[in-house]
Amino acid sequence: AFYTGNKQFVVETVESEPPLPGEVQIDVAYCGICGTDLHVYLGHMDQRIGNHRVIGHEMSGTIRVIGAGVDNVSVGDHVVVRPLDACGECPSCLKGLRHVCQQLKFLGLDTHGAFQEQWNVPAHTVHILPKALSLQQAALIEPAAVAVHDVRRGTVGASDDVLVIGGGPIGMLIAMVAKQTGANVTVSEINTHRLAMAEELGINTINPKEQDATEVLMTATGGKGIDVVFEVSGTQSGVDLMTAVTAVRGRIVMVAIHAEKPAVDLFQFFWKEIEMLGARVYEPEDYDEAIRLVAEEKIDSKKLITSVQPLSVIQAAFEELTANPQAMKTLIQCSPEAKS
Amino acid sequence: AFYTGNKQFVVETVESEPPLPGEVQIDVAYCGICGTDLHVYLGHMDQRIGNHRVIGHEMSGTIRVIGAGVDNVSVGDHVVVRPLDACGECPSCLKGLRHVCQQLKFLGLDTHGAFQEQWNVPAHTVHILPKALSLQQAALIEPAAVAVHDVRRGTVGASDDVLVIGGGPIGMLIAMVAKQTGANVTVSEINTHRLAMAEELGINTINPKEQDATEVLMTATGGKGIDVVFEVSGTQSGVDLMTAVTAVRGRIVMVAIHAEKPAVDLFQFFWKEIEMLGARVYEPEDYDEAIRLVAEEKIDSKKLITSVQPLSVIQAAFEELTANPQAMKTLIQCSPEAKS
Repeated sequence: AFYTGNKQFVVETVESEPPLPGEVQIDVAYCGICGTDLHVYLGHMDQRIGNHRVIGHEMSGTIRVIGAGVDNVSVGDHVVVRPLDACGECPSCLKGLRHVCQQLKFLGLDTHGAFQEQWNVPAHTVHILPKALSLQQAALIEPAAVAVHDVRRGTVGASDDVLVIGGGPIGMLIAMVAKQTGANVTVSEINTHRLAMAEELGINTINPKEQDATEVLMTATGGKGIDVVFEVSGTQSGVDLMTAVTAVRGRIVMVAIHAEKPAVDLFQFFWKEIEMLGARVYEPEDYDEAIRLVAEEKIDSKKLITSVQPLSVIQAAFEELTANPQAMKTLIQCSPEAKS
Repeated sequence: AFYTGNKQFVVETVESEPPLPGEVQIDVAYCGICGTDLHVYLGHMDQRIGNHRVIGHEMSGTIRVIGAGVDNVSVGDHVVVRPLDACGECPSCLKGLRHVCQQLKFLGLDTHGAFQEQWNVPAHTVHILPKALSLQQAALIEPAAVAVHDVRRGTVGASDDVLVIGGGPIGMLIAMVAKQTGANVTVSEINTHRLAMAEELGINTINPKEQDATEVLMTATGGKGIDVVFEVSGTQSGVDLMTAVTAVRGRIVMVAIHAEKPAVDLFQFFWKEIEMLGARVYEPEDYDEAIRLVAEEKIDSKKLITSVQPLSVIQAAFEELTANPQAMKTLIQCSPEAKS
């Protein structure tokens, strides 16, 4: 499925190429539609993407062919891909922080991605899954790894009061990951369908359109405030809430991609000695942990899957996802014979 | 010297009161004029201060009288005061973070301060000085402790590239404290007198009115960017510079008190996994370290003293300090017989 610009995908039949040395070829089972994919669809990233690009990266699949020199996986292994290809030479890579490489290539944006039947990727990007894990659930591992990375950046403790501002797929996964550490987690969200889903997951909720979120949260914490706030909304009101409710020496994890520059109450950083940490994608150990959490059902990733559609109707799936406020995560079934 | 509102100080003669149990009475030698004192003078803090308040807290002096039950100091000790009186009961105090107590009283703002001959303070606020240390230099210990706290919050390492945005007294002290750890320190400042002073202290300088600061700093660091940025300017341009030049996984220490809410490029926090830490006043160990640095002349605190004036002319001293862009730190000599 090629994104061709102007909110269009075109599904074409092309011959698959054999993997190069150091690569593997994967039969893609499922690939979720990420918020970033929606940005591509809406034309926000045309300059980076071009108009003939296979996108998609939240995938699961099975190793089909091994390229020369590959010895870390075997044909038939169930796998997910950590879609990062670092340069290995920039100051970030030399510090061992390859996930924030200054020339990072993101597979499925800067290269072709997983909305196709067979996907060739560098073998070093592959993580092997337990065979018992469903490949549909496994398609949630990539966003779950984002959430694991975010929660690790925030060093969430078992007795912490946690607030997640924004209850989309990433916000909900952050809430689930934080909750299974023992933290007391609240999601702030205005979409009532998402609020209902959070409640079903046993997560506290607050609707800032209906309640004074600052007052409710300060009262609920006995005046202490929130120990770890995740800003996932990308909104000015989310940014206002984050500084208002963070406890003295509390932490804010900046997960959202703020395209605009919001006004930020920097006085509160000084006054309460707040710490804010940016968090971007994931490191290998975040994938390992996400695989464990999904496989052991420590987080209920199935709950987020609201639709599974074949690759042939990817255009309709993107249209539906942008139109339907009840949708959470749509999976595209890429191999016709993929098992769930 | 009472601040009486409307940019006025009135020097009055009043009978000194004996220290209460747990207090000491100090013969104040010198007391520096802090940026906060200037805010008081300019009327920005009238609601908190009232119109009959002795302010001042950057002081040095000699113990004159010991109140009942005080056993940590002796008459004749040279001392400085850490002007914080915490409640001991709020969530911050219970976590051991008394310097960010939620009901913190700041001596010299919320109580009478040091612009007087004799000052009564709780004995627990006193740090004893080595007798060899000049009492004029010792008056710089309070702002030096701010700088020590800021540098500690930023965990500045010996090989770090450090940028201090804003070269007033606190910015200059931060630069000096960071430099003596071995870091490569640059001060960004537009006041040419302050730039010249930084150069004399062996600190790199940049004038963003004359150079593209981002380009210069990125080039100077080989594209890596700055490891630790101290935002001390309180300006929008300072906030713009801090996110532009911070390295991947670099740290920003928020020292300035931003009364407005500037626009902040939060995208950079996500993209570069930047960490920002608020820093407020000091903890006891910061005072211990500041005393050591000033006493051992690891930082050249004398350099910052641009004027010493008697208490009788405090009004003129404040007028001069707000009018003269070359002034850095003015000390008020409070006891007529104080030795330098």
